[in-house]
Amino acid sequence: MTPVPPRSRRPAGEDGLDTFCRIVAGSLPAAVVHSDDATVAFLDHRPLFPGHVLLVPRVHIAVLADLPPSDVDSFFRLAQRLDVAVERATGSDGSLVLVNNRVSQSVPHLHLHVIPRRFRDGLRFWLGPRRPYRSPDEMDQMAAAIRNHLDPTGF
Amino acid sequence: MTPVPPRSRRPAGEDGLDTFCRIVAGSLPAAVVHSDDATVAFLDHRPLFPGHVLLVPRVHIAVLADLPPSDVDSFFRLAQRLDVAVERATGSDGSLVLVNNRVSQSVPHLHLHVIPRRFRDGLRFWLGPRRPYRSPDEMDQMAAAIRNHLDPTGF
Repeated sequence: MTPVPPRSRRPAGEDGLDTFCRIVAGSLPAAVVHSDDATVAFLDHRPLFPGHVLLVPRVHIAVLADLPPSDVDSFFRLAQRLDVAVERATGSDGSLVLVNNRVSQSVPHLHLHVIPRRFRDGLRFWLGPRRPYRSPDEMDQMAAAIRNHLDPTGF
Repeated sequence: MTPVPPRSRRPAGEDGLDTFCRIVAGSLPAAVVHSDDATVAFLDHRPLFPGHVLLVPRVHIAVLADLPPSDVDSFFRLAQRLDVAVERATGSDGSLVLVNNRVSQSVPHLHLHVIPRRFRDGLRFWLGPRRPYRSPDEMDQMAAAIRNHLDPTGF
């Protein structure tokens, strides 16, 4: 057994493309629910629950911060529509919309998850360790640090 | 002990506003990291990890699908900037950006989480039960159902 390094990624295909680039290129089949010039949305092949959709940009972008500002509006308006469609198609009580950036990101190509949820569906989702602030001062210092890194002109 | 009903919500304040409406109104203190005419971002008082930020619209909107199309661009461009700022301020390896809609949503006011992540940070986040499709046909039928509910003109 060789330990998996923490930054390991799912191997790219023989063509050197990641899984989602291959789906976008049409060289890997997927259950596509939407396709346009900029994006493709398809069913996760290993869903948390049936109806779990992934939305990816056609261009290879690794993380959310890399999505060009000009693409943000259309990407997230489509995410809203997919959310509604997934909830209606599955008759769910709600949904979870999320992006993993680098950590817990199995394919290094930006993908937004739309996951149908039901009350008491058993998803042990929110059971992470809570790491409270040790004092109000520590909390204030964290807020100040984030404000200092929040470039008002963009990044 | 009275069982908590599954759809229970955190009680609104005495003024009838939810917690985030009260933060937006300034009647409840918060460690604010950004504020503008449309949005307020502040530290979650019970963070998964220090630096965990919540971004909320000032107007009372319950879920992501309710965010007006005209607000989507500015909301998510700000989410990108917050993501970068949180990662830099905390020196994290990555992040988790998510919205819970109704299920696992403790306050019924749209809030986008930006959570700094580190490799091997112990967040038992992705450990939900997987519910695979029983057959390729079942997967195709689900994709068709979602396509049928995806209104091309919006919703």
